[in-house]
Amino acid sequence: MEIDIQKNVLEANDTQADINRKYFKEKNVFVLNMMSSPGSGKTQTLCKTFEKLLPDIRTGVIVGDICTDNDAIRLEKTGVQAEQINTDKFGGDCHLEANLILESAKKFKAADLDLLVVENIGNLVCPAEFDIGEDARAVVLSVTEGEDKPVKYPLMFQVADMAILNKIDLLPYLDFDAKLAVANMHQVHPNMPVFELSAKTGQGFEPWIEWLKTKVSEKTGKKL
Amino acid sequence: MEIDIQKNVLEANDTQADINRKYFKEKNVFVLNMMSSPGSGKTQTLCKTFEKLLPDIRTGVIVGDICTDNDAIRLEKTGVQAEQINTDKFGGDCHLEANLILESAKKFKAADLDLLVVENIGNLVCPAEFDIGEDARAVVLSVTEGEDKPVKYPLMFQVADMAILNKIDLLPYLDFDAKLAVANMHQVHPNMPVFELSAKTGQGFEPWIEWLKTKVSEKTGKKL
Repeated sequence: MEIDIQKNVLEANDTQADINRKYFKEKNVFVLNMMSSPGSGKTQTLCKTFEKLLPDIRTGVIVGDICTDNDAIRLEKTGVQAEQINTDKFGGDCHLEANLILESAKKFKAADLDLLVVENIGNLVCPAEFDIGEDARAVVLSVTEGEDKPVKYPLMFQVADMAILNKIDLLPYLDFDAKLAVANMHQVHPNMPVFELSAKTGQGFEPWIEWLKTKVSEKTGKKL
Repeated sequence: MEIDIQKNVLEANDTQADINRKYFKEKNVFVLNMMSSPGSGKTQTLCKTFEKLLPDIRTGVIVGDICTDNDAIRLEKTGVQAEQINTDKFGGDCHLEANLILESAKKFKAADLDLLVVENIGNLVCPAEFDIGEDARAVVLSVTEGEDKPVKYPLMFQVADMAILNKIDLLPYLDFDAKLAVANMHQVHPNMPVFELSAKTGQGFEPWIEWLKTKVSEKTGKKL
């Protein structure tokens, strides 16, 4: 019965995700769902990303956390509008569902946005199961987490359209084989683009920014 | 309805957890449930811990992962019996439930164990909701994850009996305020013991080993 109910919850979410997708198409905004373990550096990556995109790309961000608006406050310092979702009101949900996303998205002047990023709750498992109507999914893995995470948590890497391997500035101090980590990603998702970068130093950001600009341009028709 | 069903699932789990607790009492074994984000270093911490406990404390470990038996293989090299649970058979569950634990526990010669550790699935949210009949809960936070995780994921730190702050060998290379991290833990769980250590170098292990030996001794009556 547990599995049937989970199936119903996922089906209801998928229906709402299709509604979201239609809304985002009308608004002509590219939506990126960014997922990872807690502490992989999603927020820091987004801060540096927004600094490079603004003001040319009009950007907003929805931030999911169980508690606190720490991340929204950090992100707003870059100049983006940030909308925080806290799931402690909903039993401390471990992921964001499509209905919460649409509710938050309506708080933006979405007609004026080119890019809407959803920073999902830090969890390498459950958010992968919930379509939110996004155009693309990013997974962030930090080099401190170990090379085998893609094969231990394969669904997340299978549903992602690209991956960021973050915190490469720490490689000299770790026993971490970046080539093996990328090979493990490609074992579960062949040919997925992987951007190795450091959100702290800015090293390796250009290919990721180019990827994002291309995607925004393809969706919105805006020349960048 | 989703919330009601979740409640039923949790209630069924609690009932099974009580059965587990009775089983572990009969077997006179201390059970520790170790939880954390992916990549915090649970396995490495346990490898070093088992090296210090064996053969005086007869130890077994149940290892939860969605996929792979990588961690069980690593742990068995210390000489412990390791039983892997993979949840990909159960829809890729993001946590371990009490029924799976009892099934695995019965594969041990539990009459001969003083300590049974459960290395839970890497997830800082969902495992906190599922009682498995354990005697104590440990949460591992790595210094690479950021100081604010205890306030962003409070339930995990509230249900834990103690915390390990791992990877302190990396502190010189990070902007991480260990005092603030501990203060955040104590904000959500006043006076919780916190052991700052490095599973890589072995630094700081003694207080944690002493805590564990005391707990095993209290439960089993064995002098250590």
